[in-house]
This record gives sequence, C-alpha cells and structure tokens, in this order.
Amino acid sequence: MAIPHKVKLVDVGPRDGLQNEKQLVPAEVKIGLVQRLQAAGLREIEVTSFVSPQWVPQMADNAQVMAGIERRPGVRYSVLVPNMKGFEAALPSRPDEIVVFASASESFSQANINCSIAGSIERFAPVVEAARAKGIHVRGAMSCTVGCPYEGEVAPEQVVRLAGLMRQIGVQHVGVADTIGVGTPRKVQKALEAALRHYALDDVSGHFHDTYGQAVANTLAALELGVWQFDTSVAGLGGCPYAKGATGNVATEDVVFMLDGMGIETGIDLDKLVDAGLYISDYLGRPSQSRAGTAIARKRPQAQAA
Amino acid sequence: MAIPHKVKLVDVGPRDGLQNEKQLVPAEVKIGLVQRLQAAGLREIEVTSFVSPQWVPQMADNAQVMAGIERRPGVRYSVLVPNMKGFEAALPSRPDEIVVFASASESFSQANINCSIAGSIERFAPVVEAARAKGIHVRGAMSCTVGCPYEGEVAPEQVVRLAGLMRQIGVQHVGVADTIGVGTPRKVQKALEAALRHYALDDVSGHFHDTYGQAVANTLAALELGVWQFDTSVAGLGGCPYAKGATGNVATEDVVFMLDGMGIETGIDLDKLVDAGLYISDYLGRPSQSRAGTAIARKRPQAQAA
Repeated sequence: MAIPHKVKLVDVGPRDGLQNEKQLVPAEVKIGLVQRLQAAGLREIEVTSFVSPQWVPQMADNAQVMAGIERRPGVRYSVLVPNMKGFEAALPSRPDEIVVFASASESFSQANINCSIAGSIERFAPVVEAARAKGIHVRGAMSCTVGCPYEGEVAPEQVVRLAGLMRQIGVQHVGVADTIGVGTPRKVQKALEAALRHYALDDVSGHFHDTYGQAVANTLAALELGVWQFDTSVAGLGGCPYAKGATGNVATEDVVFMLDGMGIETGIDLDKLVDAGLYISDYLGRPSQSRAGTAIARKRPQAQAA
Repeated sequence: MAIPHKVKLVDVGPRDGLQNEKQLVPAEVKIGLVQRLQAAGLREIEVTSFVSPQWVPQMADNAQVMAGIERRPGVRYSVLVPNMKGFEAALPSRPDEIVVFASASESFSQANINCSIAGSIERFAPVVEAARAKGIHVRGAMSCTVGCPYEGEVAPEQVVRLAGLMRQIGVQHVGVADTIGVGTPRKVQKALEAALRHYALDDVSGHFHDTYGQAVANTLAALELGVWQFDTSVAGLGGCPYAKGATGNVATEDVVFMLDGMGIETGIDLDKLVDAGLYISDYLGRPSQSRAGTAIARKRPQAQAA
C-alpha cells in the first residue's frame, strides 16, 4: 500500500484534550483556541462535548463555546455526545458531526460508563439514527483498541466485533483509539486492519496517545496501511505532565512535522499551529507537550532574545 | 526487507548524553549509571570521551570513570577520541572501541571543530590505523546526515561522500546521525541508504535525536530498511528541557518499548532500564525525557503511594 499523498487531521484538543486537563478553561479561551486552529488550516475540530457537567465539568460551557466560534466554510465542527439527551442538548448548537463512543474492552466499558459494550451500542443506536436523519455526520470513537488498563492486551477480534456493531447502527466513520498509549506499530496496524474489516479505508482514522512515546511511529505505521485520517491534539493537550498516570494525545505539531518532512499535504501551516499551541499552553501555564512545537518556538527570534 | 528479529542498542547516555547536559556529574555517578545500564542488559555503552577538558569539562574525569566501572564479559565499552592525542590518552583505559567523528556538512565541520571534512578525516586516518593495529574496534559517527543548523537540508550525496572517506581510512562501522533531530522517516532512510553504499547492513547504525518528536518513527523507518543497530540515550540524556535549542537523544526506554511491543529481541530488561533512567534523572534533579520511562515509573506502587 502506497503512503497517502494527503492527510486530514482532526484536532481534538479543545474537547478530548482540555477535558483531560485538571484546570478549567474559560469559554473565551476555548473559542480563541478554535479560532487559531482554523486559522492554521485545520479542517475539522472536535470542539466540545454535551455530557452532564456533573461528569465533565470542563465542558459545561459547551453551548457557549459552540455559539462563540466563528464558523468558516469548509471546516467541520464536531461534538461528542454520550446519549440521546446529550444529542438533543447539542442540536441547537448545530454541530456538523457528532462523536459517539464505545470501548473494545468490556471491563473498560463497565468502569468508564458503567455499561456493557452491547448496552452502550444499544443506547447510541437511536442517536445515530436521529443524527443521520438530520444530515449530521456520525463518527464513532472506539477506545482501548490495543490495550486496556484493566484487561491488558486487547485482541483484534474485539475490535472487529466493535466495528461490526458500530456499522450495524449506522456509524459512518470509526476512529481506532489507543486510549492508554501502549500500542506499538504492528499492534496498531492489527487494530486498524480489524476496523477495516467493516469500514472502507476512507472511513477509518487513527487516534494515538503518546504516553509511551510511540504515537508518531504508530502514525507512520498507519500511513503504511494507507490510513490518511488521524485525531491529534494541539500542544499534546490531554496529558498534564504533573498528573499521575497522565495520558497525552499525540501533539498535532509533531505529526504535522513528520507529514511535512515526508511531503504529505495537510493544508496546515505549522508555524501558525505552533502559535495555537503556545496560546493554550501559556494559558495553562505549563510547557507544551509537543516536541516540535517546543523546538520551533525556541528557534524564534523573540525566544532567542529572551 | 524484513524487519530484524534482534536489535542492538548502544547507550550513549554517559558520554553523548551527559556531555550535553549543563551540569557536571561526578565520576561516581557516571560509574553508577554505567553499572545500571549493564545490569539492564546493555551490551555496548559509550562511556566517556578523551577530549581536552578545556573543550569538554564534563568529560575531564574520563580515566577515572573508565577505571571505576566494573567490566563485564560481553559488554563493549567505547570512548570518543578527537585526535591522536586523545587516542593516546585513552589507551591506558583499555577501551574496546573508539569513536571517531566527522560531519556530512562542511559548515558544521568548520563551526564545530574548526576544520574541513577532508581535514578531519586526514586527522583521524592515523588514529584509525593505530587503533586497528591494537585490535580496538573503530566506529565512525557521521553527524548532520539529514540536516545542518547552518546549511539546512543535507543531501544524501554528502553522506555517500563522507561514508566513502570513513571507509577509506579503515573505519569499521558508521553511525548515521540526525544531530539536530530534523529528520523524518523518508529522509532518514535516504541518509541510511547513502551509508549503505559503502558499508554492509551489519556495519551501519542509526543515531536519532528526538528534538522534533520524530526519533521513534525514524527508528521504525530504519528497521524497515533492515538496520538493526541504534545509538540511544537512557532518560533521553543530552537535551535539558530548560536549555534553549536543546537537542535530546532519543530515549533508550522509548525505543525498547517499541521493540518489545514488536517482539524484537534486545536483551534489555525495560524495568531495570527505567531504574537506570530514574537514577540519573534524580541526580540531575529533573524529569526524565523518556515518555515510556516516565509512564512506567508513574505506574509503580511506590509512585502511586507518594
């Protein structure tokens, strides 16, 4: 399989990233981040979630953020919803896409949402139907497709099964997530191949965490299968270096640096992307988790002068 | 080309790593680090250099460190030498291998050692001859094989030329170094292929810096060419996070994590390797630069309790 010429990145920093940061971030800063991401050329942004604020206080300002962003044509704004109630709450915000989710690991599903895999799929079935009836695109996030904090290794068969269930209820695209970052190139390829049993290459993306430093290599391994869509998180948002067991999403900057170097088109301006990463890292008061972002910022004249 | 079943890692932390740290580290700590690296299963360690202490004060204790390490059979202890004087100074320490070096970039050579590439090769020719006459293995470190801080991109032809010069003077093995970490998978493969024009696959290794987060992916790309030897640095020594423009060697732990996950044999016990990384990071008073090392340490019972 030839390496793709073009790659689409979905920046999940504002949602998946900030949701996993300890600090609450005000709506205006989130809006500023979305603004900078689209200015850098991102064409899809996971903006927020419509989950109960009791569960996820970081996203309690979901409607405010969705109302505050300045929408650009050609950019897809997606939101995560946990159930029909969340979907209905999201509707007035006019998301272009909703993200539903389920785990490939039964014990993670129980621990995370207190529900079996089959039960979570059942819960999402009417949500997917309702979304598609309204012309809203549906993406399915499949967590723990390589490893699970409770079960250890997750077999590709579990991913095949989950992808089949996603397909059955009408989910249009699946993301293969290595939620705890334990994946290495061959394992990640097997998880992707499992998803590809039920979905076309154009409907599968990779979502890798850099907890063990493997995410950029795993992205390369995915490209070698022809996979051309990835979730990434500006500044590696989602893994605070001071939190125990923190699991960081792979930094968008690091992935763009690789793709640029390989001559693969992303439509993203790396320099502006670094600006977006610095903006949110400055707000959070901690260094960016992106190595490329950090190295590029250090080489800037103002950094040299400081 | 099939991915290799076995990989040999050379830990360059005690030399290449600590030489680039601001802090001076006492000989006893260096000896303790070498001890822990070999206990973890490393079979080659770049221990120190015999460079003038005016240039490199961090390595002024070279003879003391070499005398203090407890040598194990089957482990190769190597030292870097800049010229005949350094070689002669190193001899009483009985290194198993010497490392000589030259740059693929003319301007880097001039800036770094105030000498042309041809001049540096000329200077090393008698050193290589003398070492081989004594049965000491000679490794050649080729710097800036992908990018140069002065010239930008370095063409593979420059690497072909340098590898040819190394071969001419009798260097037995060459390391293809991405000194400033700007390499991405295809570029690194081209640099390795350039070295392979003059050296057999068994005599070429990769040496990648993780400055832009690319080193683990570049290691994967090198494995895909059949390259099975790499320089790595425990805890990512060599790139202090507080120094501007810091360039860190790829962390041994991150590479071992990938290789373990791919079922590639290294003979290294990752848990003991993490101990070695924590030992030196604790001494330096800063977090390990290894993501795998950090994640593994965080999951330990004592970390959970703290």
